[in-house]
Amino acid sequence: MTDAPISRRVLLASVAGTLGALALDRAGMAQVPGRAPTVPPDPTKVPGAPLSELGQRSPFERPRRIAVGSGQGSSLAPLQDLVGIVTPADLHFERHHAGVPTIDPHRYKLLIHGMVERPQVFDLNALKRFPAVSRLHFLECSGNGSASYRGIRPDLSPQLIDGLTSTSEWSGVPLALLFREVGVKPGAKWFLAEGDDAAVMSRSIPMEKAWDDALIAYGQNGEALRPEQGYPARLFLPGWEGNANVKWIRRIEIADRPFMTREETSKYTDPLGDGTARMFSFVMDAKSIITFPAYPVILHDRGWWEISGIAWSGRGRITRVDVSTDGGKQWEPAELQQPVLPKCHTRFRYLWKWDGRETTLRSRAVDETGYVQPTLEQLRNARGLGTAYHCNHIRAWRVQGDGTVVFGLEG
Amino acid sequence: MTDAPISRRVLLASVAGTLGALALDRAGMAQVPGRAPTVPPDPTKVPGAPLSELGQRSPFERPRRIAVGSGQGSSLAPLQDLVGIVTPADLHFERHHAGVPTIDPHRYKLLIHGMVERPQVFDLNALKRFPAVSRLHFLECSGNGSASYRGIRPDLSPQLIDGLTSTSEWSGVPLALLFREVGVKPGAKWFLAEGDDAAVMSRSIPMEKAWDDALIAYGQNGEALRPEQGYPARLFLPGWEGNANVKWIRRIEIADRPFMTREETSKYTDPLGDGTARMFSFVMDAKSIITFPAYPVILHDRGWWEISGIAWSGRGRITRVDVSTDGGKQWEPAELQQPVLPKCHTRFRYLWKWDGRETTLRSRAVDETGYVQPTLEQLRNARGLGTAYHCNHIRAWRVQGDGTVVFGLEG
Repeated sequence: MTDAPISRRVLLASVAGTLGALALDRAGMAQVPGRAPTVPPDPTKVPGAPLSELGQRSPFERPRRIAVGSGQGSSLAPLQDLVGIVTPADLHFERHHAGVPTIDPHRYKLLIHGMVERPQVFDLNALKRFPAVSRLHFLECSGNGSASYRGIRPDLSPQLIDGLTSTSEWSGVPLALLFREVGVKPGAKWFLAEGDDAAVMSRSIPMEKAWDDALIAYGQNGEALRPEQGYPARLFLPGWEGNANVKWIRRIEIADRPFMTREETSKYTDPLGDGTARMFSFVMDAKSIITFPAYPVILHDRGWWEISGIAWSGRGRITRVDVSTDGGKQWEPAELQQPVLPKCHTRFRYLWKWDGRETTLRSRAVDETGYVQPTLEQLRNARGLGTAYHCNHIRAWRVQGDGTVVFGLEG
Repeated sequence: MTDAPISRRVLLASVAGTLGALALDRAGMAQVPGRAPTVPPDPTKVPGAPLSELGQRSPFERPRRIAVGSGQGSSLAPLQDLVGIVTPADLHFERHHAGVPTIDPHRYKLLIHGMVERPQVFDLNALKRFPAVSRLHFLECSGNGSASYRGIRPDLSPQLIDGLTSTSEWSGVPLALLFREVGVKPGAKWFLAEGDDAAVMSRSIPMEKAWDDALIAYGQNGEALRPEQGYPARLFLPGWEGNANVKWIRRIEIADRPFMTREETSKYTDPLGDGTARMFSFVMDAKSIITFPAYPVILHDRGWWEISGIAWSGRGRITRVDVSTDGGKQWEPAELQQPVLPKCHTRFRYLWKWDGRETTLRSRAVDETGYVQPTLEQLRNARGLGTAYHCNHIRAWRVQGDGTVVFGLEG
């Protein structure tokens, strides 16, 4: 216990610009335009608000997803506003192929058939009667990060770059239990997962994932799945690309080969530089992003700042995140917030003393398999410029002499 | 990998009665009276709902807190509707002494003074500039469980018995960092924590807790604290009774003795059988409750059921939860959902084959200090009947021959 101050003069960080309709300061305090909440001059002199059945955010806090593309596209989670690793359910990113269906849980059915001894239909109560598990895992769209792969702009925020990843506590029944219940026949190698949305979203999944850690999930962050996340039940494949985690799942067919659906032929394959394509590229490679300081924050002050961000890998635990504050010449290990969980966002922190000079901040994740997050150049050499999936190259933030922070992979 | 079915005929669990305004089945599917959501006969034939900035629950799900007492009392989290360990922020229990104040985060200030070298005022940006930590911990009202200590009724639900505990990921600055910043003088032993609500809620806390693991928390489940939880900043004392975790914290005064506020003289002491009282009984002892099956569920079927519940201890990790399904004669260890975190809800599960006969289900938690959750008789012998705090006796559910489940500590 020492009394050594780490920052004798603590000054303010503030806002560079607007993101969506809101101006945000250090950690998401929203400056809501045209709406000033009524605040008493002294809150101890007036009775406070009564108890409620359901809480609401402070009127000063307005974290929001940003929708990209048409109504059937995706919406991005506000990473720069989030602390820790959990994503509130109403801010979890969305990616739909034909919108969010409304499903009556009392009429919900999951059929499992194909190469099985006993084809069976499970309703929701039947699924919930099986032994359950709960696990904290990230879920990420395979297209996450592509905004910083091909179209690099200085005004990209963490939300716009990597907002298609979120972490929740997922609860459900291990798919392996259901497969034992129906009795999988010898020779089965793949299963089809089919959704009950207007896209009838369909993917082929290797049987090994079911025997490993796949779930039929019905719970998210303690409560029922949200509609955008597949209510009342979805496939959940820890560490695998989002689209394969089929939502509103209604049918599983077991077979000896993949089904070659449109989502694995015309989409969700990665075209490579030599004219061929990677197929069934399910696993999300190790990735990290600094979420503070990041556009649109301005550092108004030199001295100590805590760099903070998230790292994750579809292959298991993050074992190390290195941070460079000098444009990539030197790298130092960041502190990892415990517990570090497999296939889950890991918060990293690195205390940095800014001398006021222009520089570039980078983070580089390493996972328990030894996989190292690649540079943009390494990734482009391996994959070419034709792909928009699995863009896990090192992200960089340019801190300018006036304290403005912008996205920029050079320097 | 075997194909042995664990339940060849999976049938339904359903509803005994109503809880609040809603009937609930196996895991909180609400039968909302007078409000039938529009569901298309085939969701694949109509476009789904578009992307949104902020998600909403399914109209079929209506988990709700229950307010007890006046508007300034407490509201209970719906434990029987929750899975896993995380409590959604809008369902986190409430306990207020004068309602929820509205505080402008841009005007928020925390004064630290008293036996310090450099008295200092921190605004919210200053607090957020310090190195942060995020940790999953339970928070529990000291009065939790008292409904099953003195006034035992068969129609108590998990929510009514133990709904004053919730688990969140809390983010903030270690209080030890702030204390090093201001420079604590030799001889300091206690600090006063004072809230900015109309009760000016005030408690004395031993300095050791600050040097150990106390936080000034500004984040909850990834986002800003909710107003009911102390927005924009609260004291957070992992494992210690809720009222000492002063919300809307505005002032900390460091001294060489406790301040003897009304909350530690007229309240929050535990009157004992011999006419004396326990004071400063901060630590929440180990506790557990089975949340399924529990009132108001009816088991419509014999055979395999998964008993599930939560266990927690203010002293550290839960190391063991034993379950008895025969009225307390035999006890078997339940499975603990990993990771088991210190001072955090731990989900336990136990697979039970019901033979259709009347019996009583119990759970008993043990923590890493070796502390064992006591029986009602043991607790009454130690504390007498005059207390309404720290009621951590073993809870019991009576499963009747017709499958109805009621609360009952006898048998």
